[in-house]
Amino acid sequence: MKWIPGGVTAPRGFLAAGISAGIKQSGRLDFALVTSEVEAAAAGTLTTNRVQAAPVILAAERLRRGKARAIVVNSGCANCLTGAQGLRDARLLTGEVARVLGLQPRDVLMASTGLIGRRLPVAQMRRAIPRLIEALSRRHHSEASEAILTTDRLPKEAAVEARLGGSVVRVGGMAKGAGMIAPSMATMLGVLTTDAAVEPGLLRALLTEAVEQSFNQISVDGDMSTNDSVYLLANGRSGLRVRGQSREARRLAQMLRAVAERLAGAIVRDGEGATRVARIEVDGARTSADARACARRVATSSLVRTMLAGADPNVGRIAAAVGAAGVAMRPERLVVHLNGRVAIRGGAVRPISDAAARRLFRVQPLRVRINLQAGRSSAQMLTCDLTEAYVRLNARYTT
Amino acid sequence: MKWIPGGVTAPRGFLAAGISAGIKQSGRLDFALVTSEVEAAAAGTLTTNRVQAAPVILAAERLRRGKARAIVVNSGCANCLTGAQGLRDARLLTGEVARVLGLQPRDVLMASTGLIGRRLPVAQMRRAIPRLIEALSRRHHSEASEAILTTDRLPKEAAVEARLGGSVVRVGGMAKGAGMIAPSMATMLGVLTTDAAVEPGLLRALLTEAVEQSFNQISVDGDMSTNDSVYLLANGRSGLRVRGQSREARRLAQMLRAVAERLAGAIVRDGEGATRVARIEVDGARTSADARACARRVATSSLVRTMLAGADPNVGRIAAAVGAAGVAMRPERLVVHLNGRVAIRGGAVRPISDAAARRLFRVQPLRVRINLQAGRSSAQMLTCDLTEAYVRLNARYTT
Repeated sequence: MKWIPGGVTAPRGFLAAGISAGIKQSGRLDFALVTSEVEAAAAGTLTTNRVQAAPVILAAERLRRGKARAIVVNSGCANCLTGAQGLRDARLLTGEVARVLGLQPRDVLMASTGLIGRRLPVAQMRRAIPRLIEALSRRHHSEASEAILTTDRLPKEAAVEARLGGSVVRVGGMAKGAGMIAPSMATMLGVLTTDAAVEPGLLRALLTEAVEQSFNQISVDGDMSTNDSVYLLANGRSGLRVRGQSREARRLAQMLRAVAERLAGAIVRDGEGATRVARIEVDGARTSADARACARRVATSSLVRTMLAGADPNVGRIAAAVGAAGVAMRPERLVVHLNGRVAIRGGAVRPISDAAARRLFRVQPLRVRINLQAGRSSAQMLTCDLTEAYVRLNARYTT
Repeated sequence: MKWIPGGVTAPRGFLAAGISAGIKQSGRLDFALVTSEVEAAAAGTLTTNRVQAAPVILAAERLRRGKARAIVVNSGCANCLTGAQGLRDARLLTGEVARVLGLQPRDVLMASTGLIGRRLPVAQMRRAIPRLIEALSRRHHSEASEAILTTDRLPKEAAVEARLGGSVVRVGGMAKGAGMIAPSMATMLGVLTTDAAVEPGLLRALLTEAVEQSFNQISVDGDMSTNDSVYLLANGRSGLRVRGQSREARRLAQMLRAVAERLAGAIVRDGEGATRVARIEVDGARTSADARACARRVATSSLVRTMLAGADPNVGRIAAAVGAAGVAMRPERLVVHLNGRVAIRGGAVRPISDAAARRLFRVQPLRVRINLQAGRSSAQMLTCDLTEAYVRLNARYTT
């Protein structure tokens, strides 16, 4: 497996476009489209928030068929808490994309990211659709990856290639987040593509596994979006047909995971106001649920995250977060390492000198290993620091 | 019931002192003592963090007897994650206080607040004990309330008086938090006193109820301390004996709740970096657990709290936090009011003009009413905004 350029259009048979439809007042790119030349198997993982944006509700409906040809994404407006009108808007826009492309509306998925509670500027977006479709090109993956950004500082693309069962197979992707929207919700969107042929059931399983190991293991501010969506299209243009339980399925799973992990890492590094990243690794938990709860509690603790911002080895905060996670643990058995250096053991903090602390925090990401010594389960989370810049960004007025 | 001055020594038969023992490098007051002239019934509610400070472990042991005479409190050092040595230190210091006062060690409770992972300066504190005991006076409640502070800007005291069953009964209290320690953990300490006579079992029930309705309904940063403790002493010096299920017990419960609520409110207003306070009121939840989970999720959301800091009615963030709380709810039935004004209804955001927003956020606390329309349970939380000052305080170097 090797890293290649090309993002979502690195796999064969995919086109992309990104234009400005004037949804963002700044005039920056805000309307993206990814299409497959042929019908593709489609899978998606959608936010578990009970409050879901209109495009998420529509995607849940359309993904049941397991097939799609196009994914249209806009930034600058989340189309969430917009009532029945919001759902009509999403249907109308995907319908219009389908019409111009000569497809059925059900072939088109949508994702939106931006301010909650405002309607999409539908007339404006509808007028922009022919221009969006004209811009479709294998070369325009970068424009597409830019058009889905909100407060992100950098676009996030990744692609890999490997020889599988005699064919060259590719997996590509783009993502945005986990920042805020102008300034609203931390939302995470991802579009993944592959030219392997995979039937929808297997594709769903592969995507779920990849997301579980990547996007579900990151946190910027612990807030869960109403719009989070990751879509995966598999169009079979590599000529390779991947069947369940096969060696090729395992290799494809590795490729998907590699691309998803790289995009997830890029999201945390680009987290709003972030200056430092930490990898929280929990071992020795009694159950997987305990391991995940512990990793999440530490990764989302304001005190752990401000400690990271201050490059301050105030490790008692890590222990306090572990103790608050509601998991089976005994303080005297807790062992915490920072970049391999013992920080807590035997129920006591091991002091770290200022000079050692400065060296510790220079390593990125900071590796926080937490051994509960209560069992055999483990979990990890990637998180970033909580800085004044985060607060500044998110306290800024909506308009 | 009327508010009176006097804090913890407002009830008859209590003395207090607060001195500087040099635990804080700043030289500010850091060593406090509250004593009852006669043996008192004692109850305590202690942190549910699995990592508990030495004084918390000691209090859990000594509170089983349901009796105490003195509570010694230090700020500047949490005596947490200090291993077996930390517990020995707490025993030694409470033993020394008992010896000088002519009591048994078991009569003395302790609470500590400050940096985690450092030993108490035991020799220094031991030398200060005679001076602390000499300073005991009914007039020194303010000094005691100052000596338990860390990053708090203001001391927190309250006391009430009422005529119950022919006697004048008083309840007093002091608290600190929920700030950080120099800069370490958000810790909350409280000492409550009453001159009613209450047997230990009833006293525990009364304290638990009062804490549930006050200190357990506040949040500054969602981080749970290793040192949180609220103690309550009842010495009977008012002459009134309060029995369970009686009218007097209900009145005393009201008095306790009034004092605890006032102290809890003062903690949130004094939250680190706080400039605004919001009361999150959840109604129509399917279960009490749902109501509490929903109120807590909204109160601790970074996005809701930065919205409050920015005085920005970006109410989609409230809906997103509700949706992420894992409780039974349907977005189309959710109704959110800000200070009585509809902000979300029928699955849609109701726009609020800039001028109206400015007026809304001028009211303190901002009242956020969330009706899930899924049942009959309710809960509330008091929270403060997340500001750049919070991050500055907590990213500052430990030393």
